[in-house]
Amino acid sequence: MTDLIAAKRDGRELSTEQIQFMINNFTSGSIPDYQMASMCMAILFRGMNDREILDLTLAMERSGDILDLSGIKGVKADKHSTGGVGDKTTLVLCPMIAALGVKFAKMSGRGLGHTGGTIDKLESFPGFTTAISEEQFISNVNRIGIAIAGQTGNLVPADKKMYALRDVTGTVPSVPLIVSSIMSKKLAAGADVIVLDVKCGEGSFMKTKADAEKLASQLVRVGKLAGKKVTAVITDMDEPLGYAVGNALEVKEAIAALNGAECGELMNLCLTLGSYILIDAGMTDKEEEARSMLRRTVEDGSALKKLVELVEAQGGDPAAVYDTSRLPDAPVKMDVRSSSKGYVKHIAAENVGLVSMHLGGGRITKDSEIDLSVGVVLNKKVGDHVDEGEVLGTVHATNEEAAAKAADELRACYFLTERKGRKEKFVKAVVR
Amino acid sequence: MTDLIAAKRDGRELSTEQIQFMINNFTSGSIPDYQMASMCMAILFRGMNDREILDLTLAMERSGDILDLSGIKGVKADKHSTGGVGDKTTLVLCPMIAALGVKFAKMSGRGLGHTGGTIDKLESFPGFTTAISEEQFISNVNRIGIAIAGQTGNLVPADKKMYALRDVTGTVPSVPLIVSSIMSKKLAAGADVIVLDVKCGEGSFMKTKADAEKLASQLVRVGKLAGKKVTAVITDMDEPLGYAVGNALEVKEAIAALNGAECGELMNLCLTLGSYILIDAGMTDKEEEARSMLRRTVEDGSALKKLVELVEAQGGDPAAVYDTSRLPDAPVKMDVRSSSKGYVKHIAAENVGLVSMHLGGGRITKDSEIDLSVGVVLNKKVGDHVDEGEVLGTVHATNEEAAAKAADELRACYFLTERKGRKEKFVKAVVR
Repeated sequence: MTDLIAAKRDGRELSTEQIQFMINNFTSGSIPDYQMASMCMAILFRGMNDREILDLTLAMERSGDILDLSGIKGVKADKHSTGGVGDKTTLVLCPMIAALGVKFAKMSGRGLGHTGGTIDKLESFPGFTTAISEEQFISNVNRIGIAIAGQTGNLVPADKKMYALRDVTGTVPSVPLIVSSIMSKKLAAGADVIVLDVKCGEGSFMKTKADAEKLASQLVRVGKLAGKKVTAVITDMDEPLGYAVGNALEVKEAIAALNGAECGELMNLCLTLGSYILIDAGMTDKEEEARSMLRRTVEDGSALKKLVELVEAQGGDPAAVYDTSRLPDAPVKMDVRSSSKGYVKHIAAENVGLVSMHLGGGRITKDSEIDLSVGVVLNKKVGDHVDEGEVLGTVHATNEEAAAKAADELRACYFLTERKGRKEKFVKAVVR
Repeated sequence: MTDLIAAKRDGRELSTEQIQFMINNFTSGSIPDYQMASMCMAILFRGMNDREILDLTLAMERSGDILDLSGIKGVKADKHSTGGVGDKTTLVLCPMIAALGVKFAKMSGRGLGHTGGTIDKLESFPGFTTAISEEQFISNVNRIGIAIAGQTGNLVPADKKMYALRDVTGTVPSVPLIVSSIMSKKLAAGADVIVLDVKCGEGSFMKTKADAEKLASQLVRVGKLAGKKVTAVITDMDEPLGYAVGNALEVKEAIAALNGAECGELMNLCLTLGSYILIDAGMTDKEEEARSMLRRTVEDGSALKKLVELVEAQGGDPAAVYDTSRLPDAPVKMDVRSSSKGYVKHIAAENVGLVSMHLGGGRITKDSEIDLSVGVVLNKKVGDHVDEGEVLGTVHATNEEAAAKAADELRACYFLTERKGRKEKFVKAVVR
């Protein structure tokens, strides 16, 4: 391993066998953390070519169990986001896609830090569980076209170990390491068609459009080399996605979207990602037609019905889809009023996520218990005019004290200007 | 620590407090190896400025005990080499310097790998010990001007830990890390005047003169910032130093040098390093005069007498200095003959070191027992003419089989050419 580190340090290419040796022995524990840490830093500085990244991705994919989806008929789709605040896309997109007959067999994670996980959000439905067996998972997808399971213990163990190490050794922001981490999990999860939402802006890994494009292209190239149909969409993170941030609050917004509400850029994002899934699944070759097909699943209620089926199939209370008062609800709701007037220029998305986390809606450590009811609902978004004393958003909290604290924090997330500025394009680029 | 790694990764400067925090907590064990490994790799790529290297050096120096040499009267000198094959300079230079009244209170190490340590070599004198108390060490220096002790348990523990980590994480060849490793030990050992022998060439860290000069300048700058008088001499490693490689064999050659033999470049190196010690100790300001003073210690026998005093003061058999047959002697001596003719262009120094190690004269692991008697004595050096069948060198071994194997290995270390080439200058540069 010392020789491999020196080779990468000096800018040399690692062979397929060397990469396999490294990942296998790191996973088994015979390569110690300190060697992998210095290797990660060398990769961060020297980079990797397409072949090396593919080999790294495949070696990681094969470090544990691989989901066998051959029992599922039809095209299987999957979706991944590099992590946005208020990102409830999966809750809206999956039912829409499944309503059109493309299968969605999704492995999801729990949230850590300010970004909530899809599993946490779904658990807002009383009784809902993602701890289902592989047989039930596959039978559900075959029957209703959709299932969402928690990641099994031994899916891509190399990534679990590597990510934990990268997190504390300053080696997170490396394109080859980000790509192999994301794509190894997507490959192990077995889908044919993959759409990726690469966030760009202040609160995300990729601060500039150029960096985001570099990551997106690399993700798509490696996915294609591995034989998958992959599209990456680069989207703006100058504010949270939609209006709600917090687990049950986001579920309520997702239901609103499936009932026809636009919810800021949420529906636009679902139509964009969804249209590439439909094209890659061979349902159409025209983007506009794909978007119309997706819109119709909202108009005719078939997407909402799919969500009902999903909730019911995994033990949740389906009535809560139609009556959201059955979902968790925080006891204290406090309006946050603006202390000045102007146009909203920017809402610090990451900080809004932290407000929700401080209220109890996000995990500080892996073992934290979270409160599904708390969070924030924004009233003003970028471009909106705000008068002094007007409501910027509402804080949902467990008590008055927490609400007051969160209100101050939320107010500080807003940046107003005198003149209405040009709004950034939400979908900045599509890489296929 | 994760923030510090990210700062260095992104090319930012670390503050004095940050560097102290890092070294203190790494030494105590609260910063884990994997974080220090990725920090070392970040330092390797990003470098450090003079202030950072000085702070790192001082933090490491203070990580354990510091030798208090205030009880020693007069100027204290110290010498360090970045590691050469056949390097018995200390055995020759220390007695010469001490004979002129400059104190030599030296902490030495054991050898690891192909380079033997000064302590191992000195133990060739029957009874000689370097395990002397600090009191005895200081009293010996005051009485006879010279003492050589093994490194105490707690001198620069940060370097012991860091070097072991760097060795297995591909982070050895970093100028800031090499400088802080060398200079922290030199500072902790308390001398006023320090000379450094920076080896340059194939078998050393620094392959090119430019790299060696960079390291030498940095060593000198940091040493001066720490208030010491420091000179670095860059010397060629295109062949072993002198003719002998192996513990007792090198002692015999050192004794020969103190009896007036030139022994290749050995005496030249001792005169060069020694002259800067004398100048920095204020004994003269002229290099030529300093060299004459040093030469006289050989001519009048005072340097050899100093070696006798050193051996006697540390429990060794002083008679062995005059009668080297009392030193360890290998049972088998096998001449190695050339299979072709020509001029010696190059002798792979590192490989000659490995021949000696394979014979049992070097440590493969820290706990290996070594055989002081074995090794190699060269007969031909760079520039010499060799006829087919002529003796290149002699192997000293414990048995015929080991000797035969070593003979083949030694033959492979020689590179002959048809025409006599220009010999590289031995002392390539002096940095003060």
